[in-house]
Amino acid sequence: MTKELFNKIENYMKSCVKETAHDREHIYRVLGNCLKIAEKESNVDYDILLSAALLHDIGRDGKKKKHNETGAEMAREYLRTIDFPVEKIESVCDAVFTHSNESYGQQKTLEAKILYDADKLDAVGIMGISRSLIGIGNYNNPMYVVNDGKIDMDENCETDTFVRYYVRRVAKNYDRFFTKTAQEIADKQKTIDNEFFGSLVNLVNDNCAKLRTIDDILSDN
Amino acid sequence: MTKELFNKIENYMKSCVKETAHDREHIYRVLGNCLKIAEKESNVDYDILLSAALLHDIGRDGKKKKHNETGAEMAREYLRTIDFPVEKIESVCDAVFTHSNESYGQQKTLEAKILYDADKLDAVGIMGISRSLIGIGNYNNPMYVVNDGKIDMDENCETDTFVRYYVRRVAKNYDRFFTKTAQEIADKQKTIDNEFFGSLVNLVNDNCAKLRTIDDILSDN
Repeated sequence: MTKELFNKIENYMKSCVKETAHDREHIYRVLGNCLKIAEKESNVDYDILLSAALLHDIGRDGKKKKHNETGAEMAREYLRTIDFPVEKIESVCDAVFTHSNESYGQQKTLEAKILYDADKLDAVGIMGISRSLIGIGNYNNPMYVVNDGKIDMDENCETDTFVRYYVRRVAKNYDRFFTKTAQEIADKQKTIDNEFFGSLVNLVNDNCAKLRTIDDILSDN
Repeated sequence: MTKELFNKIENYMKSCVKETAHDREHIYRVLGNCLKIAEKESNVDYDILLSAALLHDIGRDGKKKKHNETGAEMAREYLRTIDFPVEKIESVCDAVFTHSNESYGQQKTLEAKILYDADKLDAVGIMGISRSLIGIGNYNNPMYVVNDGKIDMDENCETDTFVRYYVRRVAKNYDRFFTKTAQEIADKQKTIDNEFFGSLVNLVNDNCAKLRTIDDILSDN
């Protein structure tokens, strides 16, 4: 791919992305992750990989509804209007379509697998935690809820909290990588991730225990 | 203070607080911190401390404008309507007024110092990082910006990012505690805090370096 074509697709991406947790810096981190993974693989088609990386989140409208489907359609429409190799358009769209969690296992090409892994690397470790917290702020949801004097760790907790999201999503992403390179990068992030989350849970539960001592201070009447 | 009076003030607090980063769970963490600090001090007036802890953020309207001033006024007005010791109302209002960063050094009483420390303990370490990220999400600001191929660490960075907030606020809170107890609790949080923030900065800069290799892949024309 030429620099000119890359810059064209990059500018289109910039005009599309908005959400803080999926902003242009997310796209650049995913792009960087793609490069790290791809350099350890053979026969990677960089036209497909780089375009799919740039375009994977253009379908997000902030409502989280089928953004991969919308994104694939937008990518198809857009790539047809520029000087992009026609025979590669469908592979780009497939990779955009299958980068989402819900499409796990449907990746048809090496490029689609690399993109999936690269995107999920940004959803574990420090970035997984940071972006989940930002997402909580975006939707004005609470960090956690307390039930029966303890932090609610249930992944089916009724409230959409950071803790629920972490248990349901972030913690599970570690077991779903396709490439060895991505798995290795992810495993290195696991310690600080577990430490941070574990300390947060302990801090909250410790605080709940302390709050129960308030009864010794208050009088009955 | 009686349980009944405490519950009354607690319910009033619940009806006032909204923002995710300063929601009721923040109030309960600050209350817990107050108890931890107070048990190591002598002659603490718990009527003043507990009320001020519950009421310290009721003045937040989501616009961050003089919430301590608004909060002190609301507390005065509210406490006059309930069966709260009249002679202690002004001390509660003073503590509410001086809990903000801008009022550092104006704390007149032990209770005001404890509340300040307890509130700042929730602004360092894991909670400092988590709440800053949530705040970024609340206002739809970016986590960081990249300038000249590196993460912008300038505390005067033009964009209101998580990184700017961290450098400007979170990192500095460690040197502003009044009590030994709060300082000790904060110091224990420093390692994981520094590790998390440092790793985030490294991850981003490492990614920026990787992105520069894209020129080896793209052709000039």
